[in-house]
Amino acid sequence: MPSTIVGAIEAGGTKFVCAVGNGPGSGILERTRFDSGDNPARLMREVVDWFLGQQDKHGEIAGLGLASFGPVDLDENSPTYGYITTTPKRGWQHADILGPLRRAFPGVPAIFDTDVNGAALGEARWGAATGLEDFIYVTAGTGIGGGGMARGRLLHGLVHPEMGHMGLPRIDGDDFEGVCPFHGRCWEGLCSGPAIAKRAGMPAESIPPDHPAWDLTARYMAHAFVNLTCVLSPRRIILGGSVRKAGRLGEEAFLGKVRTAFRDVLAGYIQSPSLDERGIEDYIVPPLLGDDAGVCGAIALAQSVAKTAATPERSRRESIGTSVGHIVS
Amino acid sequence: MPSTIVGAIEAGGTKFVCAVGNGPGSGILERTRFDSGDNPARLMREVVDWFLGQQDKHGEIAGLGLASFGPVDLDENSPTYGYITTTPKRGWQHADILGPLRRAFPGVPAIFDTDVNGAALGEARWGAATGLEDFIYVTAGTGIGGGGMARGRLLHGLVHPEMGHMGLPRIDGDDFEGVCPFHGRCWEGLCSGPAIAKRAGMPAESIPPDHPAWDLTARYMAHAFVNLTCVLSPRRIILGGSVRKAGRLGEEAFLGKVRTAFRDVLAGYIQSPSLDERGIEDYIVPPLLGDDAGVCGAIALAQSVAKTAATPERSRRESIGTSVGHIVS
Repeated sequence: MPSTIVGAIEAGGTKFVCAVGNGPGSGILERTRFDSGDNPARLMREVVDWFLGQQDKHGEIAGLGLASFGPVDLDENSPTYGYITTTPKRGWQHADILGPLRRAFPGVPAIFDTDVNGAALGEARWGAATGLEDFIYVTAGTGIGGGGMARGRLLHGLVHPEMGHMGLPRIDGDDFEGVCPFHGRCWEGLCSGPAIAKRAGMPAESIPPDHPAWDLTARYMAHAFVNLTCVLSPRRIILGGSVRKAGRLGEEAFLGKVRTAFRDVLAGYIQSPSLDERGIEDYIVPPLLGDDAGVCGAIALAQSVAKTAATPERSRRESIGTSVGHIVS
Repeated sequence: MPSTIVGAIEAGGTKFVCAVGNGPGSGILERTRFDSGDNPARLMREVVDWFLGQQDKHGEIAGLGLASFGPVDLDENSPTYGYITTTPKRGWQHADILGPLRRAFPGVPAIFDTDVNGAALGEARWGAATGLEDFIYVTAGTGIGGGGMARGRLLHGLVHPEMGHMGLPRIDGDDFEGVCPFHGRCWEGLCSGPAIAKRAGMPAESIPPDHPAWDLTARYMAHAFVNLTCVLSPRRIILGGSVRKAGRLGEEAFLGKVRTAFRDVLAGYIQSPSLDERGIEDYIVPPLLGDDAGVCGAIALAQSVAKTAATPERSRRESIGTSVGHIVS
């Protein structure tokens, strides 16, 4: 059986989603989830056991992709490469999550990146960023994070982007002090799910569509997107995570408010058809892979290092050329 | 004579600096400057004539690098590639500045980028960013602009970065409304030379070292740098331009204020030795090429496309292997 499936892990602070497959939708052959809990070593043993079982069932895994919540160490030359680093999450400080996978699958190439870079890569391969070399993927939910690509490469750097902690202008008359324990009114402190709930004094799902919290959140989101556009000049901004769904207001209405506020804040400074009244509809968009962006991203990461990186179409073509002659359908 | 020299143009809104050579310092064989004026077509004829004269004197130019003020069109597939686009500068709207060079030197590879990306490339090759794949080069003077690299490639995208127009949090008690005609209190509206002068009510050179304008400017600069660090995770931020020289306060004192404020604003959120009390000295730095960053960057751009991209050392090695046998010293 040819090595056309990979192992993928979307490592979140609440749950770890594990999958084997070669793409989105029916390309995901099996998936499962584990509560993250407070014992990463034990969790990783469960994860390894699950993948070993999958390998018995589906054949050799050609690569492993691990897209993780952070902060993480992405420096391959660092002794703590593949670790969660300084998270406040109990039990998870300086937790090695890549090491157990590498030791259990010594011959399998494994790759590690942030959850948002994973989701960005998934959207680049199969979703809202296909064909784009410069774009940003943001997730806004319990927290806010961002990843993406510049000139076709995932953003890394000194550590990795921590876009959610960018500072934003105060909107006139708004005295909400934000919820970030580090910065108060940073983007995450103003636009995360907990921030919206605190501002409105009720759970985000309960906020009426005409409550001012939605307008303010959309406008701060627009300020953040304008800053991203000024710094990176992305060709598209993809907004994932639960905040965009905007409870009783709804996703389309919320994104509409963000788009209108974006053009208002930018004030016509940057000229591009992508930023005009029609273009903006395709500039600020939800993820095409929806809530599977993360796990699909981990698949895409794994494929980028796999011994036989393969989408279904490619694996078919490649299989035809092999002595095995088995066509994967 | 081997083709080891390139032509370089640092195209600014006030002056065009032209040079031929192969590197910084004594690598610049000749240079001149032209006032930018309000007739770009006439200016480009003068520029072309100067380079033709240089070619008669020094031999064939192997490449041309044009690093320009903006906004510019960097899309090689666009009919207006190589144009200045929507500048308010009189006579310069939609001015083709690359075309006249290409027509005058049809066999010579020519490359076009922003002034700040040019300076960034110069610093990467010979200055404060050698060996770094992820860094930002900012110039703060009459305006504020930024460029740099992510994963070893110059930042492009939808248009190109316009970092100076990022929005920043208001510092408590500061009611200065900024000077940007588009955004008022964006980074450029708060920290450019004209902003500092307006805030203090006197030319920047005259502001006393203990005037609060310096502390406020340094703190807004720090807010902007924190945002850049959150978005791009650069390994270094290079601050060029005249603002950093800070008149009677001086460059070292001003950069010291920016570094202290940066750590204060970031509030320990991102853990890295580069951001601790000692590391920050090497994280926020002036350009090593000083005021030659721009023209050296244009040389580096030209070398990146030159028929024989060459530093003096390389040209020597290459010449040794040729039938010409002429060693460039």
